[in-house]
Amino acid sequence: MKHYPLHINTQGRGSHDITADIHNAVRDSGITEGLCHIFIHHTSASLMLCENADPVVRRDLDAFMARLVPDGDPLFEHQSEGPDDMPAHVRTVLTQTGIQIPVIDGRCALGAWQGVYVWEHRTAAHKRRFTVSVFA
Amino acid sequence: MKHYPLHINTQGRGSHDITADIHNAVRDSGITEGLCHIFIHHTSASLMLCENADPVVRRDLDAFMARLVPDGDPLFEHQSEGPDDMPAHVRTVLTQTGIQIPVIDGRCALGAWQGVYVWEHRTAAHKRRFTVSVFA
Amino acid sequence: MKHYPLHINTQGRGSHDITADIHNAVRDSGITEGLCHIFIHHTSASLMLCENADPVVRRDLDAFMARLVPDGDPLFEHQSEGPDDMPAHVRTVLTQTGIQIPVIDGRCALGAWQGVYVWEHRTAAHKRRFTVSVFA
Repeated sequence: MKHYPLHINTQGRGSHDITADIHNAVRDSGITEGLCHIFIHHTSASLMLCENADPVVRRDLDAFMARLVPDGDPLFEHQSEGPDDMPAHVRTVLTQTGIQIPVIDGRCALGAWQGVYVWEHRTAAHKRRFTVSVFA
Repeated sequence: MKHYPLHINTQGRGSHDITADIHNAVRDSGITEGLCHIFIHHTSASLMLCENADPVVRRDLDAFMARLVPDGDPLFEHQSEGPDDMPAHVRTVLTQTGIQIPVIDGRCALGAWQGVYVWEHRTAAHKRRFTVSVFA
Repeated sequence: MKHYPLHINTQGRGSHDITADIHNAVRDSGITEGLCHIFIHHTSASLMLCENADPVVRRDLDAFMARLVPDGDPLFEHQSEGPDDMPAHVRTVLTQTGIQIPVIDGRCALGAWQGVYVWEHRTAAHKRRFTVSVFA
């Protein structure tokens, strides 16, 4: 088991491609047949595997989430950290805090159209911490 | 690989903190660098990593789910097990049946604000079965 | 670590039971205590653990998703691959690309009512690729 700490500075709400970081960790591990797990140590940002060809797909995902879980929704009592905080927790629970991908022939075996993205759900920029674990 | 069976008696709909049980399993395993996986053997209750500071966050999550997947929704044909049964299956599919967390320096490396919760989606109390697996 | 490639021809939108394929991979691996991970190499079809008794449950899940993420929603800009493509990406992000299940006493330790399903989110039939990984 090899753990790689990863830190990403997000630019506020939206998604950010970390696929290259994952490929680098797998390559560095020297493991040829195994699994790679990515974990985010937060509850208001999450992970997703998403289509990596058309950036409009990720913009549409943002639009969908903005409609499904609107900022400042009067349904929410937890408002003390701002109108985007409780929606960020909901978005995190509806998506992924961890993603696991097979390692085959020494490569992270993503599908041709799969990219790994951090999804920042807060409107402000944040420093986010991850652990990438590779094992055989 | 060490498996720890875990049984929780829920009090009906709502979330229940099992973070201490996970920390206990990791400590008992003696594993210092690895991963810890938690699995729930059911389809009408699920797992989540959620903010552990303000209990209102989890009340708001319940309110959100009650609005998104209302009990007794006429959309659902599967009504024979009660008006909360089909919504419980939908809520389970939208959240997690398994959660995996890095084990670093002999500790389950949750973020400062992350807790592990069982989310009971049925309105009645249930006995729920889990398996916690720790491996290096 | 043993990887088993799996290919499924879906019949278009809807879910398809792959539980027997998972049990076969676990049995073939000879592993008695471990974990089994299933990964789908796509972004418009996903995996779920769902109630395996009443097929109406999965029909209701389809009905719920069709209402939550309607085809051709004018919210979406990404329409070039058809009215069902962007909804397929949203449905995938809201469900699972990977599922992990404990292996106990040489068996994939699903709960009594849990089945493993591929959920095709495109309206047309597709050939879908998976990797099943079993490890101790």
